[in-house]
Parts: sequence; C-alpha cells; structure tokens
Amino acid sequence: MAASSSFSTMLISQSRVVSNVKLISWERRSGVRRQAFDVGDKPSFFVGNKFQFDDVIEAQQFDRDILNAIFEVTREMEKVEKNSPGSQILKGFLMATLFYEPSTRTRLSFESAMKRLGGEVLTTENAREFSSAAKGETLEDTIRTVEGYSDIIVMRHFESGAARRAAATASIPVINAGDGPGQHPTQALLDVYTIEREIGKLDGIKVGLVGDLANGRTVRSLAYLLSKYQDVKIYFVSPEVDDIKDFLTSKGVEWEESDDLMEVASKCDVVYQTRIQRERFGERIDLYEAARGNYIVDRAVLDVMQKHAVVMHPLPRLDEITVDVDEDPRAEGCLL
Amino acid sequence: MAASSSFSTMLISQSRVVSNVKLISWERRSGVRRQAFDVGDKPSFFVGNKFQFDDVIEAQQFDRDILNAIFEVTREMEKVEKNSPGSQILKGFLMATLFYEPSTRTRLSFESAMKRLGGEVLTTENAREFSSAAKGETLEDTIRTVEGYSDIIVMRHFESGAARRAAATASIPVINAGDGPGQHPTQALLDVYTIEREIGKLDGIKVGLVGDLANGRTVRSLAYLLSKYQDVKIYFVSPEVDDIKDFLTSKGVEWEESDDLMEVASKCDVVYQTRIQRERFGERIDLYEAARGNYIVDRAVLDVMQKHAVVMHPLPRLDEITVDVDEDPRAEGCLL
Amino acid sequence: MAASSSFSTMLISQSRVVSNVKLISWERRSGVRRQAFDVGDKPSFFVGNKFQFDDVIEAQQFDRDILNAIFEVTREMEKVEKNSPGSQILKGFLMATLFYEPSTRTRLSFESAMKRLGGEVLTTENAREFSSAAKGETLEDTIRTVEGYSDIIVMRHFESGAARRAAATASIPVINAGDGPGQHPTQALLDVYTIEREIGKLDGIKVGLVGDLANGRTVRSLAYLLSKYQDVKIYFVSPEVDDIKDFLTSKGVEWEESDDLMEVASKCDVVYQTRIQRERFGERIDLYEAARGNYIVDRAVLDVMQKHAVVMHPLPRLDEITVDVDEDPRAEGCLL
Repeated sequence: MAASSSFSTMLISQSRVVSNVKLISWERRSGVRRQAFDVGDKPSFFVGNKFQFDDVIEAQQFDRDILNAIFEVTREMEKVEKNSPGSQILKGFLMATLFYEPSTRTRLSFESAMKRLGGEVLTTENAREFSSAAKGETLEDTIRTVEGYSDIIVMRHFESGAARRAAATASIPVINAGDGPGQHPTQALLDVYTIEREIGKLDGIKVGLVGDLANGRTVRSLAYLLSKYQDVKIYFVSPEVDDIKDFLTSKGVEWEESDDLMEVASKCDVVYQTRIQRERFGERIDLYEAARGNYIVDRAVLDVMQKHAVVMHPLPRLDEITVDVDEDPRAEGCLL
Repeated sequence: MAASSSFSTMLISQSRVVSNVKLISWERRSGVRRQAFDVGDKPSFFVGNKFQFDDVIEAQQFDRDILNAIFEVTREMEKVEKNSPGSQILKGFLMATLFYEPSTRTRLSFESAMKRLGGEVLTTENAREFSSAAKGETLEDTIRTVEGYSDIIVMRHFESGAARRAAATASIPVINAGDGPGQHPTQALLDVYTIEREIGKLDGIKVGLVGDLANGRTVRSLAYLLSKYQDVKIYFVSPEVDDIKDFLTSKGVEWEESDDLMEVASKCDVVYQTRIQRERFGERIDLYEAARGNYIVDRAVLDVMQKHAVVMHPLPRLDEITVDVDEDPRAEGCLL
Repeated sequence: MAASSSFSTMLISQSRVVSNVKLISWERRSGVRRQAFDVGDKPSFFVGNKFQFDDVIEAQQFDRDILNAIFEVTREMEKVEKNSPGSQILKGFLMATLFYEPSTRTRLSFESAMKRLGGEVLTTENAREFSSAAKGETLEDTIRTVEGYSDIIVMRHFESGAARRAAATASIPVINAGDGPGQHPTQALLDVYTIEREIGKLDGIKVGLVGDLANGRTVRSLAYLLSKYQDVKIYFVSPEVDDIKDFLTSKGVEWEESDDLMEVASKCDVVYQTRIQRERFGERIDLYEAARGNYIVDRAVLDVMQKHAVVMHPLPRLDEITVDVDEDPRAEGCLL
C-alpha cells in the first residue's frame, strides 16, 4: 500500500503539470516543478514544455522511457509520503474523484495522494446512483460540468471506453481509475513498479498469472505493460484468457498455459494471484468451489517458490491466498 | 459552469460575512472583506455592519439593488476562480453540505467554491437515507447538531419549506440549494446573472420558457427574479404552469402562451429549455414521447433565433436540446 | 454539540500524539504538543514519551486519572473550537473515517474536529455497501490498505468487537466510533464530560437511565465509565438491562430498578433518556406504543426535577422527549 499511495501521488503530479498555462505559472511561482519533475536534462516524456500524455487512459499509451520516468518520480514521491506533514506541491489545486461504481480502495488512494501533496478533493463515491446519470444525462454533459469545478478528474466507470470519452470531452486531465472490463492502467503501473522494486528488474522476469483472468481488467492492463520489456515469460494458470494470449503473441512475448500451479510457482519470479469471481458461476456453486480449490496460494505453494520471488494480488482477496502466507516476506509485494 | 462555480463562490462569501461577530474579527484580521465586498461606499445590502440577508431561502427575498450588489461580487469571484491556486478568503471556515437528496452537480459546485476560497467542507450526499432522518429525527434536531460542527449550511431537501425551517432553527447562515418542488434560488440567481452576462441587460428582455414547467422549482425561482426588472416579457411554450402566470400578472410582468416554439424562438433573447420529466407521465409512454417531440431545441430552432440570443438549460438535459446545438456560440449560456 | 465536537477534537489529538516517532518529530517541529498537551509536569497517561492508549476501543480502558487528563484537554479544545479559523495543530495529518454503517452525526463530528485542527480527512460513509467488504474482503485486509493512506482511523462498524480487531491489525491509532451492540466509548466520554460540566461533579451523582436500554451500546459504555467514580447511584427506568446491572454490582456501584419515572426524576441529577427502538417490537405496534408512553420526558417530568438537574439524550430522539422541554435550561445537556 505504501507503493499504492505514492503511486497515485505521482500520477496526479504527472498529469497535473500537463496543462501548459498552469505549468508555466506554477513554475514561475515556486520553482517546484523543477525540483520534483526534472528527472533528466530533457526527459523523454516532455515535448517542449508539455507532457506527452495529460490523460491516463490505457496501458498502451506508455512506452518504456515514459515508464522509467514515471517510476523515477514515484521513488521521489515515496519519500514525500513518509515525510508527514507532506508536501505542498499541489496546494490550491482541486481533484474531482468521479466514481460511477464504488471502489473505496482506489478512491481513497487517489484522495490520500492529492491531500499528501497539499491539494484538495471533490468526491462522489456512487455517481451512477446519486448523480444526473440516473436521470439519463450523458457522460459528456457531466464531464463538462465537473471540469468547471476542478483541475483534474479521476474517474471510475462501469463501461469500457468511458475514460476515453471523458478525456475527449474534458479540457483538463482525466485519469482512468478503471472502466468496466476494459482497463485499469493505474493498477498495472503500480504492479509493474512493485515488481521492479521487489525483484530488482523487469527484463527477463517470469510471471505466473493465476486465477480467473477472463474478467480481469487489471491483468489485461498488466500484460500490456509487461510486453514493453525484454524476454518476459508469462505462465497462465487459469481457465480462459484468449484475448490476452493473442495480444502477447502479436507483441512477441512468450507465454505458456499450465494447470500445475506448483510447477509454475517453482519457476516464476512473480506469482500474480487474482480473485475467483463467484458471480461468474451463477448457481453452479459446485463449479465455483472446484475452481477455487485449484488456484489457491498457500504455504505449500510458498514452499516451492524461490527465495527472491514474490506473491502479488490486486485485492480484494477472499481465500485464494491463505492468511498464513501473509507473514512470509515473499508476500510483501501483495499486502504492503 | 464557470459561472455556476463562481456564483456559488460568491454566495458563500455573502452569507459568510453575515454573522456579526465573525465579520468583525475577520475584518480586523485581514482587511479582506473590504476588498472583496465593499462594492460601494455603503452597499444597500448592509444595514450598519450587517448583511440584510444571512440566509438564502427564496428568490422573493432579493430586490434589484441586492441583485446588483451580488452580481458585482460574482464578477470579482470569477477572477478569483480562474486564478488558481485560489484565494484564502475563507480559510478556517467550515461549510456543511447537507443533501437529503443527491445532487452531485449542485453539491460539488458549492464545495468547489468553498475550497477555491480556502475553506473546508463537511459533506453528506444522501442524508435522507444515511442520517438519523431515516430513524425519524426532526430536521430541527439535525440542524442543531450540524450547526455545532460548521459555520454555514448548504441544504438540499425533498420537501418544500424545509430550507425556511432550517434557517429558523440555525444560528448560522443556511443556503437553500433546492427544497422539493418549492424553490431553487441559487440556480435562479445564476440564471439571471448568466442572462445579463450574455445579453448585456435584463430590462426589456424577452424570455421563452420551454418544456415541462409544472414541477420546475428552477423556473419558479427564475420567474420571481425576472419580475424585479422592467419590461420583461415571458413566453410559455409548455403544457401548464398556472401558478407562475398568476404571480407574473400580479407583479405586472407581461406573459403569453404559445405552442409555436419556432415563432417564440425567433422573438426571444433567451430560450430557456427544461427537461421533460418522464416520471410525470407514468405508464403513458406515448404521451411522454409526444410531449417530448413538441419541445426540442435543435438546429432548426437555432436557425430562426436572433444572432445575439442564447439557449439556456439548468441541466441535466436528455435530448430536449440536440447535441449539434452545443457547438453554436448561442448555446454558451447553457453549457458554459 | 459544542461539547460533542470539541470532544472529538480532543480525542483525535490524544490518539494522534501517540505514535512515538511522529510525536517526537512533531514536538521538534513546532513545540505544539507542549502547549496543547502538557497538562501536568508528567501526566499520568504518558509512559515516558508514549501515550498509554493509542487506540480508543472501549470504556474499560480509561481510569479516573486518564479521564481527568482527557477532560482537561477537552476544555482547552473548547476554546480552540470557538476561535475560528481554528488551529493548525494537526496540519499535514490525515484521518480516515471508515463507516461500515452510516452515522452522519458521529462522522461529521470527527471530521469537523479534524478540520478545526487543520488536519485533513478521507471519508467513506457506507463502507459496508460501497467497499470490498461487499465482496467478502476481511476487515484486516481493508485496515491494512487504509492504514497506508492515513495517520489515524475512526471506525464505525456493525459488529461487536470489530474495533478491537482493527486496532490489532493497524500500526496507526484506531478510534472506535461504535461497533454493533458493543461499545460507543466516545459517546460515553462525551456524556461524562457533559455531566461534569453541567452538574459540577461526578462523585456522588444520581443518574436515571430511562428508556429501552437493552440494545444501548451508548448506555453500556456510560455505565462502565460511571463505575470509576465514587458513590454514584443509578436508577433504571427500563424494561431489561441485566448485563449492565451485573457489571455495576461487581464494581460496587449502587443501582435500583423502578417503573416510576416521576419519582426517579425528582431524585436524580441527570435524567438520561434514550430512544425506544421501534424495530425491536416487530409487528407488535401496540406494545411499542405502550412502552413509549411509559418513558416520555415532558413538562410534567421537568416540573418534579431539581433546579440543578439536567436532561440528556444521545440523539436521535423521536418523541421520548417532547419538544416543549427543549426551551428549559435543564435540557441544555441534551441538545446543546
């Protein structure tokens, strides 16, 4: 979580500096950008004075250089975060968290980040039910309203593609905090950052993706990001994830299917576990129970894992990682 | 929306200065009031050192001089708002947004305003369901609690007259952000301000009120405010709004009914469109569809409108203004 | 309510200073602790540099010395609160209000307190429905996430014992804002503080507990606290509260049952009234109506009460205290 929160911190700062006018006045005002963001002489993610991305919509928009630059800022932000009472980098700026489906973990993560940087937050935790969306207002009209109130929008939506539509409408930056079964790019950024921090590298890593990946927007975004690195190998221990496999093949990423969790666990640097989604099995509780049993990470799995390897999970977890695993240092990547 | 938010900004400031004790200590502390609020040598809305209104309950409480004074402050606040990182005028003050029915647009507008001025916010977006109101507590008891926590209350309620009851109980200012089918004075203030900004005057304007006005608290409040100006003429293109007509007649405001939207549009300075409320038609979807068809503002309507005229809408809109209208400069009064 | 809010203010400050590292850096930074918290040369609630409690879980954890020390800080905080624009004691600190069941009164009380002290808030008003708890995440996993975002957690939960579990997991302070039918220690602290302020003493007082006390977590916590004082006598005017009676007996606190509200009212310093919980009577509306009638505090009850006595109520009240009682100065302990 330390990682999670400082990651949001960084994302907000990145997007924030984007809008040209404010960037300039900001720089003039305090010189703060220089200190926080000039990670190189001419960082690759600036074009002239402007960020290459001002919206964060999908994993595909990042290349390796941008990822490196982002992670460098993240490491800076980890220091800011531990250093209560925080920074004032974003003092006077307002973030709107526009959540069309509730996600307390993601929402509070961004809000904590904004407040740790001295900024302020407007929040709605259930916009689908509580806002004019319920009366049939278009997303575009809502965005035009909210952009009048704030300097950046963090949006969670139940429909794939909603973040892109919002970004096309808004004149302020939009961060996609998950849209339907589509993408969850900020979670994927966090995952890749965590892998590098825990394993020490990204090229050449072996990652086991375990569990029910079919509805996994998190896993989809993660696979996209991993494809940017060299010699990555992905093992699927999962019923069905055909679209991701096709994508990986097209990007030249090696992958393999397996139903032997123990064997995969013994080979991988990262065992990335996801929740078996009960709702997908409808009334077939028996199938659900069976599926669950096949993909549980417990002490026995840990016993075959290498010393340097880590278990990760995007949360929430039910019992697909047993609680006795938590105490193992290799679980740090998951619950830290 | 720029207007919307800076308008809330202004309203909060106005109400805020009201309470005498704080006004004085505030003035002493920073001299800020003088700069922000001394719009004249002795503005008409002060009696001695005290605002004439500290609560904003209904459109009827404003006279023309007060409206002028308010609009002057609003213009000041528009500058503050564009000037991130905002002002510190209200630093240390707490606003409670007590919403008994959700209204994300209105709530975030006030919260954005408060935060742009350096103040802080306590918020509940669904007090009807989430608070003791659900257990049968009286509004008066709730208000006595909340006034102990905050310096000003912005309230949205589902019952006509609730704002007046709250104001009668509270020793701090109460702003009515809409109470049932009753009033929505802050929306009406915003509308009148927008008309003046877009058309350049209020005396002598012609306003077409289009759509389903019967449940329209917004339209009711707007009609009250327009009656303060000279030679205003109102055209109703709407099924039924008898109580407003009687009021206008009693105030000497000229009005006319019409079912010819095109003709009205060609004559008016402002075409004020509202949502046809589906819920009013019950199961008679056919009637709803028919009503909707009669009152749609589209390109054809724009084509007959004068160059200086504007289309306005309190939002949310469904399809009673078609999307292709948005790009016309005359739609700025609506979606800006 | 003045008391209520400044009480929360104090509680947050207390807990806040707890964590050793931050306490030290804080002290160094501003010298603020010394001014706000050194109520004596070596206050009994410090062990070395560390607070004896960093979590507030149940009434039993307080002894008389700690209560005195807390109340002394509360009196300080009452001054802070009246002195807008508030203090900056907690600037840079973040409180998470994690409410698994909505309680606007309690939540806003803590949030107001935090903001009056210059701190910031992350809030979720319905975590049971809106968070991963709905998907089956354990409280422990949720707490591990939220502690990564904030410096202190204020939690309301629907299960008895939840606060203790949260505190056992978190490395930051946890304040129990009510957990199921279990405890509501902060309400009880407020009640005892209010009694001392209104009556001028706690030893030797006579308290009538009136109404439906069986589900009363507030009353349970209050009885625990009162047992710390000398010669307290408690009268129950209520159907059934056996577990509290046993506890009082074991602590040597004198108690008596009565069904004569008038007689009890004439003897007591404090008449503490609670809500008759309709939901407990199911379909037996007749029994509910009868019970209600027996325990109403009205003008007739006030007439037999002593001049110095007070009526108190934890709110929300329905009609178990009639509205005409509000104007009597002896009702101040309740609705102020």
